[in-house]
Amino acid sequence: MSHRSKYYEEINAEAEALFRELTELPSNYRVIFVQGGASTQFEAVPLNLLSGSGKADYIATGNFASKAYSEAQKYGDIKLAATSKEANYTYIPDTTRASFRSDADYVHITTNNTIFGTRYTAATLPDTGSVPIVADMSSNIVSERMDFSKYGVVYAGAQKNIAPGGLTIVVVRDDLASKSLKICPTMLKWETQIKENSLYNTPPAFCVYVAMLVFRWLKLHGGVGTMQKVNEHKARILYDAIDNSNFYTNKIKPRDRSLMNIPFITPSEELDAKFVKEASATGLVTLKGHRLVGGMRASIYNAMPVEGVQKLIEFMKQFELANR
Amino acid sequence: MSHRSKYYEEINAEAEALFRELTELPSNYRVIFVQGGASTQFEAVPLNLLSGSGKADYIATGNFASKAYSEAQKYGDIKLAATSKEANYTYIPDTTRASFRSDADYVHITTNNTIFGTRYTAATLPDTGSVPIVADMSSNIVSERMDFSKYGVVYAGAQKNIAPGGLTIVVVRDDLASKSLKICPTMLKWETQIKENSLYNTPPAFCVYVAMLVFRWLKLHGGVGTMQKVNEHKARILYDAIDNSNFYTNKIKPRDRSLMNIPFITPSEELDAKFVKEASATGLVTLKGHRLVGGMRASIYNAMPVEGVQKLIEFMKQFELANR
Repeated sequence: MSHRSKYYEEINAEAEALFRELTELPSNYRVIFVQGGASTQFEAVPLNLLSGSGKADYIATGNFASKAYSEAQKYGDIKLAATSKEANYTYIPDTTRASFRSDADYVHITTNNTIFGTRYTAATLPDTGSVPIVADMSSNIVSERMDFSKYGVVYAGAQKNIAPGGLTIVVVRDDLASKSLKICPTMLKWETQIKENSLYNTPPAFCVYVAMLVFRWLKLHGGVGTMQKVNEHKARILYDAIDNSNFYTNKIKPRDRSLMNIPFITPSEELDAKFVKEASATGLVTLKGHRLVGGMRASIYNAMPVEGVQKLIEFMKQFELANR
Repeated sequence: MSHRSKYYEEINAEAEALFRELTELPSNYRVIFVQGGASTQFEAVPLNLLSGSGKADYIATGNFASKAYSEAQKYGDIKLAATSKEANYTYIPDTTRASFRSDADYVHITTNNTIFGTRYTAATLPDTGSVPIVADMSSNIVSERMDFSKYGVVYAGAQKNIAPGGLTIVVVRDDLASKSLKICPTMLKWETQIKENSLYNTPPAFCVYVAMLVFRWLKLHGGVGTMQKVNEHKARILYDAIDNSNFYTNKIKPRDRSLMNIPFITPSEELDAKFVKEASATGLVTLKGHRLVGGMRASIYNAMPVEGVQKLIEFMKQFELANR
């Protein structure tokens, strides 16, 4: 199938229309489907936006937030506005408008921190005045309702909640679409794909097709609002199971706990390793925490049903009884 | 499935090993699986190679070859060494070593020209002396045996012969892997993915998986050498059908005719349009020529069986009889 065929154009158009509907996106935002992952946007963001003052402020709340910050260094005057590194990223730093330079071209945040298990909420979203917020939403896009009008640019690798790896969704407010640096490669320029409706070159067609199907499924099941309720329920029963035990611990500041990624530990590293091994034997896989954190991490994205979380909680109780 | 899991690492490793085996790749070449398409490599090539003299010479043999040439302009002293534009790209220009600057960092060619239907063969491959040849092989990789030792860098979007759109294979000779310009974005730097075995960030995992399956299939069916024989047979019977008729014409210099893309016309544009419409009604689809060429184009990539070409030839005969 040619990606220049009407069949693919329909897929491309439906995927975009459903994404706009599901995210309640205001009409002054453009949506493009690109390649390269969030890692490519770590550079595309400064290359597309730093033609004003050349300044940008970053909040480092984890591994990818810090990578975004360091990649941007090459392209302008990049400042760390806040970080929770000193506490191994267990919370979202509080900021005020004074935390940011008022002439910055943008402020960059990562709305959900996959490895550490924190997230921004409407209450913690920075007040940046007229400086646009650029957000990496890779690990919590379409998992809860977001007010996109609070952002200048949003980008997300699709592989957590939307489609197989290889698709990145970028949302750009109209007034930010034409501010790229001269050295910005054509293929990293958002404008290139905005003008061509994401069809400047061969798109990651299968990923866009799966995204369309997932968006249809999301809509059929009540949209992002309903998904959010399910995700809040899943997270609550798991956090409750951890908090109500004297065996498991989650170190994240309660206000900032992620709905998507829930890290926890047992009383010892030996028991952590035993937990991961025995859980895996019962079919509860991919529970090993990231090496930067250790312990366990339950990633309970949209595709994880409540029953999966319940099964994990049952296993946790049995494991605690056997190893306490 | 995590792309950091051993399951995915096995897919990644098998895809690379099979590609190396099928292309008989010398051991001093690295293979990486990246995103962004050949269009991204149009910029990645100069950004990765122009740190020597800053000069590069291009041969413009079609639409994508010309795009590669114009994108490179931004990054150095880029010269057009040869072109067949004056004849609407109906042949591959002859060159000698004197056609190229001896201090160029590379010479760029496009081994098969999808829209116009030409290709390089061993006989027409330029003699560039010690200047490495960089080749875009997007539309004929693994369709015929190629001597990769003649090239410094080879890249190919996978969507013609290998996998769904969204995967690009880049082959880099060891000595060319660390010559990037300072302004080269980390994500366009070949070295980034070479060091991390194509797992620097989330890969286009489904595409790599399909590539692995296609490579298994290719190996099972005799490898690239056998595929080449099938492709030569497919092309020969179609070119014969065209040449033996007084109704159909292919304008390409016979020496330079592509095995993959075969454009042809009838005596009039009206008949061309009728051909495309009636062919489509019998299940022979995607035969409309590119707007730059008009007429028809049969793209007979690896996945097209001989029977498909035979069916086209039968239709061509019937159409000729009815419209002559």
